Amino acid sequence: MQLSVRLPIYDPSIFKPPVVSSHTSTPRSSTPDLPSTPQSSRVRITTNESELEGSNKSNTPKASEGELNATWEMWDVIRSICNYDQRLSLTLDLTPPLPSSAGVLKRWAAEPMHSIFLPASTFIANAKGYPVLPKGTQTFIRDIMKYRPTVIVEGANKGVHSRGGETAYLQYVRHLEKTSPALQAMQQPGTVENFAQGYHDYLQAPLQPLMDNLQSATYHTFEQDPVKYRNYEEAIYQALKDWPESDRIVICVAGAGRGPLVARSLKAIGRSKRKAFVYALEKNPNAYVTLQDRLQREWGSKVDLRFGDMRALELPEKVDILVSELLGSFGDNELSPECLDGAMRFLKPEGISIPSSYTAHIAPLSSSKLFQETQAGRDVKTAETPYVVMFQAVNILSGNGGGLAGRCGPQVQECWEFEHPRRDAALDSQGLPLTNSHNTRSAKLTFHIPHAGVLHGLAGYFEAVLYGNVGLSIHPDRKDQISKDMLSWFPILFPFKEPLYLPSNSELQVTMWRLTNKRRVWYEWYAESFLPVWNAPLPEVKTKESHIGPVVNRHGSWLAPAATPVAPPSPVVDAIDLPFPSDRNVETPTRSSEDWPKTDIGLVKIGQTSLHNPGGRSSWIGL
Amino acid sequence: MQLSVRLPIYDPSIFKPPVVSSHTSTPRSSTPDLPSTPQSSRVRITTNESELEGSNKSNTPKASEGELNATWEMWDVIRSICNYDQRLSLTLDLTPPLPSSAGVLKRWAAEPMHSIFLPASTFIANAKGYPVLPKGTQTFIRDIMKYRPTVIVEGANKGVHSRGGETAYLQYVRHLEKTSPALQAMQQPGTVENFAQGYHDYLQAPLQPLMDNLQSATYHTFEQDPVKYRNYEEAIYQALKDWPESDRIVICVAGAGRGPLVARSLKAIGRSKRKAFVYALEKNPNAYVTLQDRLQREWGSKVDLRFGDMRALELPEKVDILVSELLGSFGDNELSPECLDGAMRFLKPEGISIPSSYTAHIAPLSSSKLFQETQAGRDVKTAETPYVVMFQAVNILSGNGGGLAGRCGPQVQECWEFEHPRRDAALDSQGLPLTNSHNTRSAKLTFHIPHAGVLHGLAGYFEAVLYGNVGLSIHPDRKDQISKDMLSWFPILFPFKEPLYLPSNSELQVTMWRLTNKRRVWYEWYAESFLPVWNAPLPEVKTKESHIGPVVNRHGSWLAPAATPVAPPSPVVDAIDLPFPSDRNVETPTRSSEDWPKTDIGLVKIGQTSLHNPGGRSSWIGL
Repeated sequence: MQLSVRLPIYDPSIFKPPVVSSHTSTPRSSTPDLPSTPQSSRVRITTNESELEGSNKSNTPKASEGELNATWEMWDVIRSICNYDQRLSLTLDLTPPLPSSAGVLKRWAAEPMHSIFLPASTFIANAKGYPVLPKGTQTFIRDIMKYRPTVIVEGANKGVHSRGGETAYLQYVRHLEKTSPALQAMQQPGTVENFAQGYHDYLQAPLQPLMDNLQSATYHTFEQDPVKYRNYEEAIYQALKDWPESDRIVICVAGAGRGPLVARSLKAIGRSKRKAFVYALEKNPNAYVTLQDRLQREWGSKVDLRFGDMRALELPEKVDILVSELLGSFGDNELSPECLDGAMRFLKPEGISIPSSYTAHIAPLSSSKLFQETQAGRDVKTAETPYVVMFQAVNILSGNGGGLAGRCGPQVQECWEFEHPRRDAALDSQGLPLTNSHNTRSAKLTFHIPHAGVLHGLAGYFEAVLYGNVGLSIHPDRKDQISKDMLSWFPILFPFKEPLYLPSNSELQVTMWRLTNKRRVWYEWYAESFLPVWNAPLPEVKTKESHIGPVVNRHGSWLAPAATPVAPPSPVVDAIDLPFPSDRNVETPTRSSEDWPKTDIGLVKIGQTSLHNPGGRSSWIGL
Repeated sequence: MQLSVRLPIYDPSIFKPPVVSSHTSTPRSSTPDLPSTPQSSRVRITTNESELEGSNKSNTPKASEGELNATWEMWDVIRSICNYDQRLSLTLDLTPPLPSSAGVLKRWAAEPMHSIFLPASTFIANAKGYPVLPKGTQTFIRDIMKYRPTVIVEGANKGVHSRGGETAYLQYVRHLEKTSPALQAMQQPGTVENFAQGYHDYLQAPLQPLMDNLQSATYHTFEQDPVKYRNYEEAIYQALKDWPESDRIVICVAGAGRGPLVARSLKAIGRSKRKAFVYALEKNPNAYVTLQDRLQREWGSKVDLRFGDMRALELPEKVDILVSELLGSFGDNELSPECLDGAMRFLKPEGISIPSSYTAHIAPLSSSKLFQETQAGRDVKTAETPYVVMFQAVNILSGNGGGLAGRCGPQVQECWEFEHPRRDAALDSQGLPLTNSHNTRSAKLTFHIPHAGVLHGLAGYFEAVLYGNVGLSIHPDRKDQISKDMLSWFPILFPFKEPLYLPSNSELQVTMWRLTNKRRVWYEWYAESFLPVWNAPLPEVKTKESHIGPVVNRHGSWLAPAATPVAPPSPVVDAIDLPFPSDRNVETPTRSSEDWPKTDIGLVKIGQTSLHNPGGRSSWIGL
């Protein structure tokens, strides 16, 4: 049995009487028959000024953040109590007008939206009398069409609108579907949306290309990327152009796979009109066969193939440019830092690494769907393993604001960076690092959560600088500038085992670690939530002229009198306790009562998760 | 390997400079070498006035609640990140003076307190020069002696005190141990503390006396109770005295076990000098053998034994007084309501049931130890099953205050009540209820949480009225008045699967259900947490004289203009969206701007647990 809960999403301010200056206040004669907003009288917190400004054009009282949340809060309790059961879904009732805040609306994307309930009365008549929807509702429906909801139009046969009849509603809804930007993108070849069809919200285990040998089909998929190799070629080309004139520039492709970077290197050499030679290293015997074939057919003497692990192999000469593509969705999660540590031996001191650096980024995420998926295994292992996922039914909970105290960073924040070549590790006689401890990282990031939501995981992204201003990025805000339509990497998801409820205007502090031992690399993560509160004014402290303060005696003990007079004989008889703090005058610093703040904003911790994947118990990458 | 974390507990106000009225503020010349208080500058929340009043005798600035919590917050993060590992314990460092608030101190009882670190410098000299401890520290140590901590005295050989030498410290600590009220109670026979030794914090599955037949040893244990049977006898005695003069008062003991209530009934009859006759019903064949033996040896013709389930048996006559002892730690959790529904057929319409009513009570509880125990099974079943437990290393998180908005009840709150005889169930021809739905119950209770803590479970208690003012109670605040030294019932624990962090001054709303189907009874429970926040003053709303408000047209649609003029032909062309809310004058109620609160206290939801034991999946009691 499936159960779909029909809930209205609306702007509660439409049910508020307008504000006038007179004192005549008449009770409402009739109240529209609408669901009540539970807790609206209890939940009354500060509204986000900037966001609600748009709707502040009249003197109708603005709905508070708590009121705007009321429907979602109701839903959240229902599905939490039902333990995110897969049979429970949501039907959004669009009868009343929608709230104008995008932040309030986008949370529904993270919920199991099954249907949309759209009565004929919600449609307005256009100039010709045909039923159409208000602009805000149009935008909302176009946006959620990508979730393929069932649209239920009610009362189409009641003649609410003068023109078009029953079919006009259907025609209009189909029009919205056709003009949905997300659906249009899905139909256009070459876009990520088109490429990712069938992968949306599907959990994939990240690749272990170092421990496992990739299959030919996997290489084939990656080689389809129209953008990645173009940018690599451009980076190699620019590096070659910047390199001082030379009879022989040596390029090394570390991890050549089936050869796309070798081919791009040769193209870049041709374009740059430099004299250059390419070493191609590969440890996967299956890919190596292809490389040998291509050498014979395409590359000839311009390339020298070498079989083996870049951490163990030797080259006959030092190289000028080291090219590698070892990046994972989180940058370092396929062990690019460790592999390049092994290959840096080949590079001349002034040599160039492509990529030259990469960074890992996270954002807090809500998704009923993904939480259901990571919980489906019913064991801790599947619930705290990172997954590669093309996000669809998700909502990023963080906002770009700094939070009330200005402590919070942007919506997506950088965890850490790796740079190549790096010169700070202690190396052995072969030029290899003695330990891997220089590749550990940690980050503590604070996010502002403008609207209440439930934290289910962290969305992870990477950004890489290949060379100069050429890069690769899956950072949601920057990917289109840096590497639009790149297909090779979906984001990564670090799930939380237990949902963490976050109220509106709260702050989420995420701590992440990249840890390592001799055989493995793994991530651990943990979060704490805080709420800014206004303190009530502190009670007035009566001030006296006396200087008083703590007493520290010569033994470092507080309040211990230096000597006490003679008295009863038992060793266990009490001392006379001095009033505390002592009222004797001692040399202590003083502070004016006026220095104490009367009212201010403070942060109260309100929740925390457990530590995820401690010691790499559930997930690790083999070295 | 065991690891104990040494942490100081102290009053942070001793590190604050005192407040004076002059503006001369000199920096501190030297700061005592003490652990810093993390987050003390960030966490700054309202202090609980009433509680801190006691320490407000001087003009030293009071430590905020956040500062008082700092050490515990640090510990909480450590043990949460370590996932409550059993090898991790706590050593309380009593070097600095203790905070004066009992609420701040008692939380340590819920933590795995392994040792107490007590340097000689913390001791003060008594009148004779011997080392003793300040009063507050004495009380604290006497109280925690029941957890049997290892006391580490440091620097005893340094001659800090003039008299007594090294052994004086040891002698004094032993003196505190000997005068610990809890340890004294444990040594005194007849007390619950003495009886419960070895059972502290030990999880026991609740009895299923209806489904299972109790063993003789179990009966033996219960029959030792010096208080329960005395109160039963008293209740029966008073009921007999109150009963109108009669030749034959008929008593029925429903569930006679090995006969203690039969014997007490006979005693009460003797004391009351009434003519009465006793039926004794028992369904356990093992106990029935004992009853037959006692009938022959002791009771003779004063008693009529009947074998069978009270829900099915028939008696030759209606009875005046129905006596039963079917109560569990939570009152109704051994199915007394269901059993008595079956036995009520025997009772005359004006008859008396002993007990006449019972109530279930809960309080939110924190306990590292019990959380470890319920998590040890590593499955959901052990983590959401109620257990009978003699609490020791626990802390009740709730306070008696009403919370900031006065919405909260007392520290321990009543869930529900059962009364006997009850007359509202629909009965079949045999006088048995048609369904058990009248025995379902639910309760939604709100607790005030004065000091930050982690919720691990609900402590459950019962209270029963036997007859008149004679009762039985394990309610922590009332048991000593009602049934002091009663041993038969330990409290019950409803554990939470995941810890819920509760900040200082928060409110916890617990929802509990007693549910039933044809074969089972079970409990479900769930909690949500809220934090009261002061709203910043709302921005001033400019008021106009125009009356504006939402427009509802005849179709129940908002903002849909009744008609629109002629315009372009396409049915999907937009309508002209009206500004919202409409600025047309319509008949709508108005409200004065002065009615809107400018500043007030609101509640923000900050967390929730999952629903525990849904459908009785992990724990139920068989009918």
